Amino acid sequence: MIVILKKDAQKAKIDSLLHTIDAWGLKANYSKGDETTIIGLIGDTSKVDTDSLLANEIVSDVRRISEPYKAANRRFHPEDTVVDVGGVKIGQGFFSVIAGPCSIESEAQLTTIAKSVKQSGAAFLRGGAFKPRTSPYSFQGMENDGLKLLLAAKKMTGLPIVTEIMSETQIEDFEDVDVLQVGARNMQNFRLLKELGKTRKPILLKRGLSSTIEEFLMSAEYIMAGGNPNVILCERGIRTFETMVRNTLDISAVPLLKRQSHLPVVIDPSHAAGIAWMVEPLSRAAIAAGADGLMIEVHNNPKEAKCDGAQSLTPESFDALMGQVAARAAFEGKVMSRHG
Amino acid sequence: MIVILKKDAQKAKIDSLLHTIDAWGLKANYSKGDETTIIGLIGDTSKVDTDSLLANEIVSDVRRISEPYKAANRRFHPEDTVVDVGGVKIGQGFFSVIAGPCSIESEAQLTTIAKSVKQSGAAFLRGGAFKPRTSPYSFQGMENDGLKLLLAAKKMTGLPIVTEIMSETQIEDFEDVDVLQVGARNMQNFRLLKELGKTRKPILLKRGLSSTIEEFLMSAEYIMAGGNPNVILCERGIRTFETMVRNTLDISAVPLLKRQSHLPVVIDPSHAAGIAWMVEPLSRAAIAAGADGLMIEVHNNPKEAKCDGAQSLTPESFDALMGQVAARAAFEGKVMSRHG
Amino acid sequence: MIVILKKDAQKAKIDSLLHTIDAWGLKANYSKGDETTIIGLIGDTSKVDTDSLLANEIVSDVRRISEPYKAANRRFHPEDTVVDVGGVKIGQGFFSVIAGPCSIESEAQLTTIAKSVKQSGAAFLRGGAFKPRTSPYSFQGMENDGLKLLLAAKKMTGLPIVTEIMSETQIEDFEDVDVLQVGARNMQNFRLLKELGKTRKPILLKRGLSSTIEEFLMSAEYIMAGGNPNVILCERGIRTFETMVRNTLDISAVPLLKRQSHLPVVIDPSHAAGIAWMVEPLSRAAIAAGADGLMIEVHNNPKEAKCDGAQSLTPESFDALMGQVAARAAFEGKVMSRHG
Amino acid sequence: MIVILKKDAQKAKIDSLLHTIDAWGLKANYSKGDETTIIGLIGDTSKVDTDSLLANEIVSDVRRISEPYKAANRRFHPEDTVVDVGGVKIGQGFFSVIAGPCSIESEAQLTTIAKSVKQSGAAFLRGGAFKPRTSPYSFQGMENDGLKLLLAAKKMTGLPIVTEIMSETQIEDFEDVDVLQVGARNMQNFRLLKELGKTRKPILLKRGLSSTIEEFLMSAEYIMAGGNPNVILCERGIRTFETMVRNTLDISAVPLLKRQSHLPVVIDPSHAAGIAWMVEPLSRAAIAAGADGLMIEVHNNPKEAKCDGAQSLTPESFDALMGQVAARAAFEGKVMSRHG
Repeated sequence: MIVILKKDAQKAKIDSLLHTIDAWGLKANYSKGDETTIIGLIGDTSKVDTDSLLANEIVSDVRRISEPYKAANRRFHPEDTVVDVGGVKIGQGFFSVIAGPCSIESEAQLTTIAKSVKQSGAAFLRGGAFKPRTSPYSFQGMENDGLKLLLAAKKMTGLPIVTEIMSETQIEDFEDVDVLQVGARNMQNFRLLKELGKTRKPILLKRGLSSTIEEFLMSAEYIMAGGNPNVILCERGIRTFETMVRNTLDISAVPLLKRQSHLPVVIDPSHAAGIAWMVEPLSRAAIAAGADGLMIEVHNNPKEAKCDGAQSLTPESFDALMGQVAARAAFEGKVMSRHG
Repeated sequence: MIVILKKDAQKAKIDSLLHTIDAWGLKANYSKGDETTIIGLIGDTSKVDTDSLLANEIVSDVRRISEPYKAANRRFHPEDTVVDVGGVKIGQGFFSVIAGPCSIESEAQLTTIAKSVKQSGAAFLRGGAFKPRTSPYSFQGMENDGLKLLLAAKKMTGLPIVTEIMSETQIEDFEDVDVLQVGARNMQNFRLLKELGKTRKPILLKRGLSSTIEEFLMSAEYIMAGGNPNVILCERGIRTFETMVRNTLDISAVPLLKRQSHLPVVIDPSHAAGIAWMVEPLSRAAIAAGADGLMIEVHNNPKEAKCDGAQSLTPESFDALMGQVAARAAFEGKVMSRHG
Repeated sequence: MIVILKKDAQKAKIDSLLHTIDAWGLKANYSKGDETTIIGLIGDTSKVDTDSLLANEIVSDVRRISEPYKAANRRFHPEDTVVDVGGVKIGQGFFSVIAGPCSIESEAQLTTIAKSVKQSGAAFLRGGAFKPRTSPYSFQGMENDGLKLLLAAKKMTGLPIVTEIMSETQIEDFEDVDVLQVGARNMQNFRLLKELGKTRKPILLKRGLSSTIEEFLMSAEYIMAGGNPNVILCERGIRTFETMVRNTLDISAVPLLKRQSHLPVVIDPSHAAGIAWMVEPLSRAAIAAGADGLMIEVHNNPKEAKCDGAQSLTPESFDALMGQVAARAAFEGKVMSRHG
Repeated sequence: MIVILKKDAQKAKIDSLLHTIDAWGLKANYSKGDETTIIGLIGDTSKVDTDSLLANEIVSDVRRISEPYKAANRRFHPEDTVVDVGGVKIGQGFFSVIAGPCSIESEAQLTTIAKSVKQSGAAFLRGGAFKPRTSPYSFQGMENDGLKLLLAAKKMTGLPIVTEIMSETQIEDFEDVDVLQVGARNMQNFRLLKELGKTRKPILLKRGLSSTIEEFLMSAEYIMAGGNPNVILCERGIRTFETMVRNTLDISAVPLLKRQSHLPVVIDPSHAAGIAWMVEPLSRAAIAAGADGLMIEVHNNPKEAKCDGAQSLTPESFDALMGQVAARAAFEGKVMSRHG
């Protein structure tokens, strides 16, 4: 961490600051130039609050040099993490596809889709029981009834299940869920993250719509700091000025996250663009960029879907896509994870 | 709502869509041109899911014409809402300043600041007990102990208090808090919003970092749909490409929100830029743009502050600012709200 | 185009508007509902100025339905365009790599790089003679001397050359250049675009840093409207809130541009992230997403490069990359274009 | 400037880098820590290319400490610049309003508006003769005929005139124009900026839609580095994710530009939102934030305007606005500039 001092900083105040740094257990490397005087802080600066330094009247600017995340940092954990969900793996060469409807609507709907995506080679079944919707007047999900249907579909197909948790009060209810999804809007719901850190459940953490890569990794750090190492990162499109798509898939996030962190990275091409026909080209790009998995919305009747119909694939188009996915994962030297 | 059909839409499928629209209790106005065929949906379309329309194979695009919010909409509630907090008012010509430290750190700190901001003319005391921090290693607030200190400061000064609630599980603990603040990161924590809708507490709802005006009003709608009309909107800067400031104050939000909605609008110039010297010019602009209040961070010793020191005013500079604020509120024909 | 009227629009003013629309040679489809009255404009609306409609006191909103571009629109030109540069093709299944230094620095530098990239399989040689630099104090390019070196390198290697033109006054000087590049900062330099439209030169048009897909295609339309059909679109990263990379590669632009337009699409992974090690994963993603080519910066001594050293590949790493590129282009069923 | 070295940097390569820095005429302050080694560059670093440093294999990151602009920098020019246009001043306490139509359409139109805005207190007449339009099919301006009308209106009213120049080839034709406007899309048309730097004409430089404050000041620096000190900065809205307005007025730009630079700052509230009714609240905010002037579109018949009708004020509403502007400029202690 580097502290840049104002040109007219008085000696007494500099000494006081150096004293403070020393009291924090850090070494201060002071270097005075004609134009600029800087202090380099050496040691573990992850707990130093840059804001309080900036509030010091003699400080002009503060710049971090090392990343503020540790548990999620590849620097301290060079090998890839593989998240193992009852034998189905993501990361370290294992490529997994998570598929299913945006929201669970009925037993018939979920059963049909679950069998079909399993048949096509999906490793996980997804389905929303609790739905975060922009409007209070939109369908909010089947809630606990939806959860029951999802558990039944798991029993029937054997596929491990992924579903979104919206509050720390639900952790008990989600006991039999295999992977808990934290949605983009809750990426900085720190109370939820802390409680999830106390479990050992695999967590699929979605990047917030306008979160930086660093903030994303800091949210993973919240979960890992609590002792839970099973975090899967999911990029699902960021908010930009472009209006032709709902969000802009940040494909650079794949190589960046893989370099900065050891955690597996999954891409959600359905939410990224919000357009069904774009799922295929974005999936192809994700695999080529180095992703460890895909999360794809499939609905047996998209035009009757209670949410996100516009971005859902039919079982037939999902099946065709999976042919492409398998060929491309093989090209990249990855092993497709499958249940059983 | 307007549904634009694809050029090659078959008659049978169009009929089926018209039938569906009819079944929704809406009137369909069908108009066929050489290049484009459109269907106008007439009636209450606030519950129509645009996504399921978009998923219909014959539909090319769907455009909303009327706003999806009702309770928060000035169209259905032309006069300004005034939120009355035990006699201290915000809105409809009443201008209120909310001031205090970012986080509550000790009894001495809070007492000193509380007395001082009251003296300078603040109408509300703010102070964070539960702090949403990007890093799990940063100070997370004094939590329930902080809440107790805040209630004691309220007792001592008489100032109504504003503090951030982070989860629906805390509502009971916040019973004696006058205004519950929902932070920017929780603007779309829908479970929290729904539970707050069941109370009648004044809610200070902060705009998410990358939320559109429409999404912001939809979050207010969540609270109001539950029956709670006491919502205060707070613009606190949005995320843009600019790096010289932490966030970009969206001053246009003031006239836009006042026109689209009847709810009071408060500006937080401290978080907007994240720089203490910018609080004054941004406060001036906010008042001139038509805001109903300001929310300002004050700390008796910014450089020792446990959070956001760089953006906190000292009690002296806050006092100087309040002179300006009062003169400008008067220029705009507003009445400064004050306790007692 | 749809015109939405205000609720209280007076009949006389509506009639006057309908009359105006008729005078424009368009058919007006008027449909009145309880809440909303809309007018559908039928016919060629590409020359209708939405702004003047919006300025009409009875108009509440105006929405375009059809795209405002025609020459660049796939709707009116379903088959892919192939740009043929003296036998070297881009588009319609032909994949081309453009490589070379950011700026031309000396004969020795350019010759070394040119031979090397040809050897590795590049189809075009790029090199900047006139450099748009943010700072007036940065190296501005070798200008006309650079151009001469580039032409000499073309002669030596036979590779067609690509270089940036900055003003319509330079068109004559660039007569022997094979492909004229319009930089991101000049994407809306309309005087330049108009003059380029009068030539029949292949134009590599780079997307502006914060230009929408529609604006990008409208700039292509400027060139094509003048009669020049030889436009190659180049996505090179857009400006977002992310700070870890210089720009965010918009991979969705590839399928979107290919669907909306028939023009070839090239990706510049060097400028997108601004980081040498990211060129490879982004190139892989670009090919998988359906791009028709890549534009890559190569420098024989990146750390001495006069610009953009941080994003330049060495000849060795470019050669390794080309192995990957060829294998992947083949996987996608594309033919690698090569000179000679 | 601070150079952060990689952890495993070899001594020989560090020595070579230190030698290079020395050869640049800079002092290198080397400080080695356990985790991080940094080199502080001391001296005039404005010409150091950060990219070539980043390309050095032992360098991990480079951070600028001092601003890369000099002529535009308040640090080296503490007092406000006042731009004097034949006696009409902007800056240093002089507040000027520039008003007129988006585009010049006819003698009658321009004359009517010119007289009217003069009457209402505008100090400058604006009017576009050459119009940068997104679509090649939109009205492109009356071009040289428009320029003649503008010069005639200047003669008639005595008001100095402001109009947009689009290419360096037009400088001679614009000889009698008082203030040359560089549009947002040309903010980084460096050839134009360099040529304008050779004149001594007042330049109204508009901020690019997605340009940072630093890039904006660097474009001013281009003009000033050529010897032309007469630059007026104009903020006109930036591109964000918000869709309810055309652009987002960056009100923070006013205090930031005034602090970083000594140049006068003008706000264009017409283009910022693109909505006529928002011109008034945004103008109020601009004055309160410390702007030195406003640039406002006025049209005698907005609904027939050939461009930007939706954001143009009528002469009547402009007159009403000017009453407010004068009162508020006086409140801020500013003197309203007026011709004659």
